[in-house]
Amino acid sequence: MDTGSTASGAGGAGVRGGRGVSDASTADTTDYRLDGQAAIESLRGAFSGRLLTEPQDTAPYLLDYRKRWRGAAMAVAMPDSTEDVVGIVRWCRQRQVGVVPQGGNTGLTGGSVPDRSGRSVLLSLARMNRIRSVDPLNNTITVEAGCVLQRVQETAAEAGRLFPLSLAAQGTCTIGGNLSTNAGGVQVIRFGNARELCLGLEVVTATGEIWDGLKGLRKDNTGYDLRDLFIGAEGTLGIITAAVLKLFPLPVAKVAALAGVTSPQAALQLLELAQNRLGSSLTAFELISSDALALVLKHFPGSRLPVETPSTWYVLVELSDLDSDQHANEAMENLLSAALETGLVPDAAVSASIDQFRQFWALRENISEAQSAEGKNIKHDISVPISRIPDFIEQTDAEIQAAHPETRMIVFGHLGDGNLHYNVSPGPGLPPGDDDAFLALEGPINRIAHDAVVRFGGSISAEHGLGILRRDESARYKQPVEVAMMRAIKQALDPQGLMNPGKYLPD
Amino acid sequence: MDTGSTASGAGGAGVRGGRGVSDASTADTTDYRLDGQAAIESLRGAFSGRLLTEPQDTAPYLLDYRKRWRGAAMAVAMPDSTEDVVGIVRWCRQRQVGVVPQGGNTGLTGGSVPDRSGRSVLLSLARMNRIRSVDPLNNTITVEAGCVLQRVQETAAEAGRLFPLSLAAQGTCTIGGNLSTNAGGVQVIRFGNARELCLGLEVVTATGEIWDGLKGLRKDNTGYDLRDLFIGAEGTLGIITAAVLKLFPLPVAKVAALAGVTSPQAALQLLELAQNRLGSSLTAFELISSDALALVLKHFPGSRLPVETPSTWYVLVELSDLDSDQHANEAMENLLSAALETGLVPDAAVSASIDQFRQFWALRENISEAQSAEGKNIKHDISVPISRIPDFIEQTDAEIQAAHPETRMIVFGHLGDGNLHYNVSPGPGLPPGDDDAFLALEGPINRIAHDAVVRFGGSISAEHGLGILRRDESARYKQPVEVAMMRAIKQALDPQGLMNPGKYLPD
Repeated sequence: MDTGSTASGAGGAGVRGGRGVSDASTADTTDYRLDGQAAIESLRGAFSGRLLTEPQDTAPYLLDYRKRWRGAAMAVAMPDSTEDVVGIVRWCRQRQVGVVPQGGNTGLTGGSVPDRSGRSVLLSLARMNRIRSVDPLNNTITVEAGCVLQRVQETAAEAGRLFPLSLAAQGTCTIGGNLSTNAGGVQVIRFGNARELCLGLEVVTATGEIWDGLKGLRKDNTGYDLRDLFIGAEGTLGIITAAVLKLFPLPVAKVAALAGVTSPQAALQLLELAQNRLGSSLTAFELISSDALALVLKHFPGSRLPVETPSTWYVLVELSDLDSDQHANEAMENLLSAALETGLVPDAAVSASIDQFRQFWALRENISEAQSAEGKNIKHDISVPISRIPDFIEQTDAEIQAAHPETRMIVFGHLGDGNLHYNVSPGPGLPPGDDDAFLALEGPINRIAHDAVVRFGGSISAEHGLGILRRDESARYKQPVEVAMMRAIKQALDPQGLMNPGKYLPD
Repeated sequence: MDTGSTASGAGGAGVRGGRGVSDASTADTTDYRLDGQAAIESLRGAFSGRLLTEPQDTAPYLLDYRKRWRGAAMAVAMPDSTEDVVGIVRWCRQRQVGVVPQGGNTGLTGGSVPDRSGRSVLLSLARMNRIRSVDPLNNTITVEAGCVLQRVQETAAEAGRLFPLSLAAQGTCTIGGNLSTNAGGVQVIRFGNARELCLGLEVVTATGEIWDGLKGLRKDNTGYDLRDLFIGAEGTLGIITAAVLKLFPLPVAKVAALAGVTSPQAALQLLELAQNRLGSSLTAFELISSDALALVLKHFPGSRLPVETPSTWYVLVELSDLDSDQHANEAMENLLSAALETGLVPDAAVSASIDQFRQFWALRENISEAQSAEGKNIKHDISVPISRIPDFIEQTDAEIQAAHPETRMIVFGHLGDGNLHYNVSPGPGLPPGDDDAFLALEGPINRIAHDAVVRFGGSISAEHGLGILRRDESARYKQPVEVAMMRAIKQALDPQGLMNPGKYLPD
């Protein structure tokens, strides 16, 4: 494999501006030369796992999940052990070669694919997928970074425990990726983000050393919080190779309700009522606009709306109970009765079986796919203080519709966390199928939405991270003092700038 | 005020080795001179709050809560605003003067008093004590660093919300100190440490800039986790000036039970049962040895044991309920019935009133004072994985008793967090009142206990932090790669080494 020619070859193919598979590269001014074949042989000798070099083998690792960024790499290195990761990182370090860590490659911001220079090694943690131990009395599980999330959930359940992190990609995404992006999902209202579910880490640092921080402790105040620095750093400070995760009691019963609400403000009042009555039995509280729901009803033929009275907004409420089905149902019905009485909720349905529970959830979970089936869309993964959600939606909808009346809003998300998937689809004013005309609006609409987010004290990336997609935008919205501290930390822990180069922070 | 002579004057007085008021200074090799009076005048002009320079005014700020460390300072600066803090930090930075931040000065490891050089400014946040805002719908409160914890609790309660951080010093300690030491307390099993209760910070950096990170967001993935880096850093990276804290629904009912258990292993089984049945209604689970309880019964005349059958160990269980007193009592009684049936618990009592609830808690909360009344003691604030607590106690008790049979163990703590206050008192083998003979054992006993902690995968400072007391010990037990990363971060964010000099990390 000739690294140089692969890089330029890949760099020239299929790139187009704005959208589609685009170039994730950044300027590379490093002055070095590696003889391709000799370098590969030398890397092969540096660790004992697998090394992929053939284009047909490496291709799946070099294209992101959303097929927006295709990169190139010298090779795909698949370590079997933490010592293997050390071998790879040290090899790269000696040669000034970038290291791009990858888990399940399900990220949505391009953080897990290399740039197009072909001068990085893609380090896939997929083979480091052992469950190292389960300690039910300590309520912890210790797993390697390449463990698929669903396997961690299942292993916990076998031990009579819950690992609550739950998101659409759970059959493919890995714990290392979940932690590196501080993944969110649908249970954050009760259990927090991935960060809150982690007690300790094992990390291979940018200097190629192993930091064994795999402590299963609830309290430890003996130094700077390195754990939380590596979590959410998207591989730019070091490679997470294993983690101690928190477990919880397995709920005995779960029940969901779908309720119509008259407005986002009414949804917020229902949320407050639910929190005060259910406390931490409230394990999800999702907001869905009728337009978002209509797309699911249209594109998923088996689906149906379980309430009779139509509303402009709906919420999906989930309750998890340690007592019994009966107790769970009573608590949910009491909540909804109170809400119906006050007029907050015109109509609501409670799931009467596991099947119905799944059907209700499918109405929420199928929105993304329904949106894709409908055509292109412009996505925002934003958060604002929960109390400001109604004003944010009202004002920002109006701003976008005033500037771009040819579009329509598809809004849904985790109201209990103040996190909206605030998406925009083509409206009747755009010629059907003219994707380019619509996608040309991405930049201007991003700007309106994100300016509003910042005005409302929010975040332009609530749970998807920065990667390439939000790297420059994020830095632009941040205070210079914060960017300076981030750069100082990057410089302190990765002075050669080799960990996931070109991501997260602008050069 | 002549800085130089104050420093040497203070440095020469009342120091004795090992214990008592000792010298917290570290070698100071900085080569600079400040003319005392001119410097004070110049500092007075750098901000608008109060400046204390007279020894009778500054003295209370220069001696720690446990009266173990007395330091000296050029002056005590009491800013009124974040801009004042900027003024003080910049003034110090220009002159290479250290800044020692202090909240309520209730820390237990000497972190909030300066060394004896007299070359630092003590920065008291006491006057920055405003509640900036309460947002019940977002479940957040924004407060300045000098707010006393109890006032935050009370303000939250007035808004119908709970701020759950709860610890013995809550009438005096401040939120800034709680965050800088990542305080724990009795509700960690349900709500986490101070870190988990904070959504955002305002910080004055070591470079004298304001970082406004006061976001009230549940999800924000747009950069390195600076918040959690400043939390628990004990003022060595910058000054926390304000914070956004999480609020929770206010419980409707609380009930406590005191239960005898046959062993720490039985206590652990009861904990598992309680977690699986009560989930997050379980808000405290404390372990108390009969020797610890006996000291309270002896030194607090009004106190009495509410169960008839004596045990060698007891647990205090607290349940918080959002439903009703009746629901809370039933849940607690069901738990204890199940435990009595299995033989885990020979005898138990449930609080039947608020008074009794307080009496039960007093048995736990008065242990420290009872221990002081009994004489000197050697303290350890340690944590190990919860599942290993029984083995830790058995093995470490045996080791200490074998090496020092003239002592006795006073063990209690937060079993639900794996955190023990693992203390040692003089036993019958030591001449009564011979404190020096007993205190000479502190080093050797610390070593036995902490070596055991590390062997069990634990932490030598679970909730009290490092300060001076555990600074060198902690660094000795850490892996070199972790200490190197801590030093790199310190260097990155405080390159001049002026933030709380001499604490946390050995020079």
